[in-house]
Amino acid sequence: MEHSETMPSAGTGTTGRNVLREELPLPVCVLRGPALERNLERFQRFTEQAGVLLCPHAKTAMSPALFGRQLAAGAWGLTFATCAQVRVAREHGVQRIFYANQLVGAADIRYICDELRRDPGFEFYCLVDSVAGVRLLAGRVAAAAPGRRLNVLVEGGMVGGRCGVRDVGTAVAVAEEVRAAAAYLALAGVEGFEGLARSGDDAHTEAAVRDFLAFLARIAVTLDGRGLFDGDRVLLTAGGSSFYDLVIEALPAVRLSRPSQVVIRSGCYLTQDWGLYGQALADLHARTGSGQPALEPVMEVWAQVLSVPEPGLVILSAGRRDFGQDAGNPVALTHVRRGESARRPLTGAGWQLARASDQHAHMAVPPGHGVEVGDLVALGPSHPCTTFDKWRSIHLVDDDYTVTETVRTYF
Amino acid sequence: MEHSETMPSAGTGTTGRNVLREELPLPVCVLRGPALERNLERFQRFTEQAGVLLCPHAKTAMSPALFGRQLAAGAWGLTFATCAQVRVAREHGVQRIFYANQLVGAADIRYICDELRRDPGFEFYCLVDSVAGVRLLAGRVAAAAPGRRLNVLVEGGMVGGRCGVRDVGTAVAVAEEVRAAAAYLALAGVEGFEGLARSGDDAHTEAAVRDFLAFLARIAVTLDGRGLFDGDRVLLTAGGSSFYDLVIEALPAVRLSRPSQVVIRSGCYLTQDWGLYGQALADLHARTGSGQPALEPVMEVWAQVLSVPEPGLVILSAGRRDFGQDAGNPVALTHVRRGESARRPLTGAGWQLARASDQHAHMAVPPGHGVEVGDLVALGPSHPCTTFDKWRSIHLVDDDYTVTETVRTYF
Repeated sequence: MEHSETMPSAGTGTTGRNVLREELPLPVCVLRGPALERNLERFQRFTEQAGVLLCPHAKTAMSPALFGRQLAAGAWGLTFATCAQVRVAREHGVQRIFYANQLVGAADIRYICDELRRDPGFEFYCLVDSVAGVRLLAGRVAAAAPGRRLNVLVEGGMVGGRCGVRDVGTAVAVAEEVRAAAAYLALAGVEGFEGLARSGDDAHTEAAVRDFLAFLARIAVTLDGRGLFDGDRVLLTAGGSSFYDLVIEALPAVRLSRPSQVVIRSGCYLTQDWGLYGQALADLHARTGSGQPALEPVMEVWAQVLSVPEPGLVILSAGRRDFGQDAGNPVALTHVRRGESARRPLTGAGWQLARASDQHAHMAVPPGHGVEVGDLVALGPSHPCTTFDKWRSIHLVDDDYTVTETVRTYF
Repeated sequence: MEHSETMPSAGTGTTGRNVLREELPLPVCVLRGPALERNLERFQRFTEQAGVLLCPHAKTAMSPALFGRQLAAGAWGLTFATCAQVRVAREHGVQRIFYANQLVGAADIRYICDELRRDPGFEFYCLVDSVAGVRLLAGRVAAAAPGRRLNVLVEGGMVGGRCGVRDVGTAVAVAEEVRAAAAYLALAGVEGFEGLARSGDDAHTEAAVRDFLAFLARIAVTLDGRGLFDGDRVLLTAGGSSFYDLVIEALPAVRLSRPSQVVIRSGCYLTQDWGLYGQALADLHARTGSGQPALEPVMEVWAQVLSVPEPGLVILSAGRRDFGQDAGNPVALTHVRRGESARRPLTGAGWQLARASDQHAHMAVPPGHGVEVGDLVALGPSHPCTTFDKWRSIHLVDDDYTVTETVRTYF
């Protein structure tokens, strides 16, 4: 794979150390390596069988060593959400980047144009959602003189959601503005993110996602009918980590006057999680039955028991600076007594995160918990993105929790 | 100041750039430098006038360039909460460290002991709160052979709180265990963190803080009465950023058989904030009247308007990976039209963060908000700790938002 030489791993001196034997300072964030490899292979194969391209959102981990694995496994490109992320990707040799965001900033546009001029092999796509935004972008691209046109996709959005046009009429106006700036911009397709449709009610959520994908299809058909797309192939892209099955059902069915290619951007397949995406995967299996990839949660934060100050309370050495809580608290997974290696499962044992300080987890525990100062406890986070970004180094471990590789993150 | 040479700043190429003129990629986190200098000087003077030592909790910013400023202003030492933080401090030349946590991990204890052996000028204090913890610590210190005794303080805790003994009897048992390990440990004082006492009701919170400080005093008097303290001077330490006035009222009044010294550990005076500590400071002024330091909030996250996709909604280029939300959402502070420098205040203008994505803020805005794609908006976070840790570089700016120095963080 062309990228592998430039994707470094970070670790020096950590490989071969065992987490359970306290051979690393705690807390640590680990990824169970064998399960991660299985996720990587299974999800890639799944997208290939579905006939869609995979351009995973790599903002999740922001780890070049993981970028390299995703590309080596067959990902078409990588998706990013900020220009700071794009810089990291470029500095680590990533050649095809889908920028799933509006490109607005002066410094950002200058940087992208410089890279396009410097490296003919760099392929870049970004989004537009307003006439004002297209004008600003075109003007800034014109000034930066990249030497070729910038690929843009019209973003469709949902009412009350984030960026993106709310109706087909605006999509047409935006696409026409792109055409008016044809010296600088090329219209490459239509994009949307259906993952914002979550509501309390599964059936309602699913219907909202289907409606949204139909809206994206209407945009594509309308722009195609008006001859507003550039290039030989129209990109149709959606798909986070919760509803890619619905995307794969809806978007390949869109018929245009020229070939189209569906790209999904799921990022969390690599690690799954113990909350948000664990539930999303269960929902997805319930919705579609077999044929979906069996993904495993691979991320764990290992902490140490600092204090058992009163009955029912155990204080761990990891806190809100070590795991995310935006999509629910982490769950207690495993207890290992200090100096021993036997792993006792804590899922279903009645442990619960009662409160998090910056550097401590306050665990409410049942009577007879059997835990002592110095023991180790693993927590399983929900929403990997907001745990990844709390760590500068993350350890890949084997099934015995011995470190096989330490990877850096670049947030 | 002895530390200043080893406290680096990070910036190359950013000094002199102006945030409002889009000369830096956005979003950025800035600290208003002149206000920060005022906070630094005012709080230091305040503690000196109160006759207490200041050992600020430096986990807040984890920025050696700011460590250097705090020490140069006269701080007695710096406080940290994890051994990873201590390593950063040591690597940047910090000589006196208060470890406001239980020291438990094998690798951590080995590291501290190695540093104590290597550097006779290194002064270190940590906490103990259980007989089991003291035994574990003493055994590990014995094995690591630091060549001198490790200073420990008994931590007092509150019921339902975090670490710390819940009653005086346990404090005595812990202190006696320290005495039993006198070859390895020395009892230097009593510690507590009153900041966990927050409740919905101000009067109730204040009473709980006073009770807790009285509990710490009882521990100190009891251990002193039993001759369990080592050294010439007993350290009495408490004081986060919300109730240091009550600490300064209560702890210097404790009378022991040997001299005592009160140390407060407030960390957020440096930056204050726009939420949690803004309110805490207002409460403090209401409680105590004049004589308290006038601290200013100095931290701002500047983002760009990416989209105005529907009436009442503005999407900014900063999200939950750019600011903390654990103690409330950031508030909208300032609007600057693209290409202009005039700053329009947004506080009180009816803006509100409706939702945060990883990389976007969804701002609910009133009709006639007058904001367009490409404009800049400043957000003011609550709880600086969880915004600092989202950034690897932070810019100090002058009153015109020109960068005067870029400092690195080490989380």
